[in-house]
Amino acid sequence: MSPRPFVVVISGGTASGKTTIAQALAARLGDRALLVSHDRYYRDVADPLDHNYDEPGALDTALLVEHLRALREHQPVTLPIYHFPIHRRLPEVETVSPRPVILIEGLFVLGDPAVRAQADLMVFVEAESDLRLARRLRRDVIERGWNIEQVLTRYMRDVREGYRRFIRPSRAYANVILDGEGPVEDSVIALLSRLPAG
Amino acid sequence: MSPRPFVVVISGGTASGKTTIAQALAARLGDRALLVSHDRYYRDVADPLDHNYDEPGALDTALLVEHLRALREHQPVTLPIYHFPIHRRLPEVETVSPRPVILIEGLFVLGDPAVRAQADLMVFVEAESDLRLARRLRRDVIERGWNIEQVLTRYMRDVREGYRRFIRPSRAYANVILDGEGPVEDSVIALLSRLPAG
Repeated sequence: MSPRPFVVVISGGTASGKTTIAQALAARLGDRALLVSHDRYYRDVADPLDHNYDEPGALDTALLVEHLRALREHQPVTLPIYHFPIHRRLPEVETVSPRPVILIEGLFVLGDPAVRAQADLMVFVEAESDLRLARRLRRDVIERGWNIEQVLTRYMRDVREGYRRFIRPSRAYANVILDGEGPVEDSVIALLSRLPAG
Repeated sequence: MSPRPFVVVISGGTASGKTTIAQALAARLGDRALLVSHDRYYRDVADPLDHNYDEPGALDTALLVEHLRALREHQPVTLPIYHFPIHRRLPEVETVSPRPVILIEGLFVLGDPAVRAQADLMVFVEAESDLRLARRLRRDVIERGWNIEQVLTRYMRDVREGYRRFIRPSRAYANVILDGEGPVEDSVIALLSRLPAG
């Protein structure tokens, strides 16, 4: 039987660069890698206007951990598909097979003991808070056309507090700290050097 | 002759709360205080679109120091009036007389040795960079209607670099560090306790 998949867990604050780095690494690894975003596991939301997405309880992490265990035991899993515009999980799922490298990325994955127990490499992507807010505003206000006042209000009410309570403390568990302000390619090279040969 | 005016120098990054605190303290002191903003001393700008306001060279600090020396020697001075919409100093000036407490506030005042040499109390107002950017966006984009893309571009190009090079290092000179994220009244009380009785 082939060796157990190697699990890389990548966390960081909003717009730190974690998803960009995870996607660039996955692209480099091609068929060798499976990228699973924690965002898939958001729970259905009753009232989107009064909902806090920036705390771990907003996600079904137990299901992620179940999937991670299965993948490490060479079993395929059916990943949920969360649809942000309707704030709900879709009835469809996506079946994926294990691959030699499993990349898990999300705000809270490094802060979860059960996720960490499945990890072979733990990564934290760091970027200063003003840069992260600037990137987020570019994405949400300039690219997506959201209302700046709503984005700032949510940032100040939920995002900042979630970072302080849950995300920043999880940095202590990381084996690798990446500079989310630097070139993505540098981060990809740093991670490639930590993966098993293949 | 009355005692020499007591000079308080207040610095901090953009939107840290320094102006708000200086104005609240001046309001509390009433006739006892004169507030002079370093912003009055911006130099005329030839090309506003390609100008860096976030470095000390953009201001005529030598003139501020000259005024400060005169005020400490009980002489009236004529303060310049800078008009931001036209990026120029107005032909008019404003004549002010010395008062027992002189408050000087600005981005770069604590970083200037000649200003520090005139200071009796040096204050740095601290706030995290994401909060400062959020406040600045509220002011420039939501209140003043400026273009968010231009505000973010200037922030990332000039403001952030100016803070790192000139403002953050000047924190080391402060006798008092104030929390620009907390209630303004707390800062006013902290400063009142450091002023000479009167």
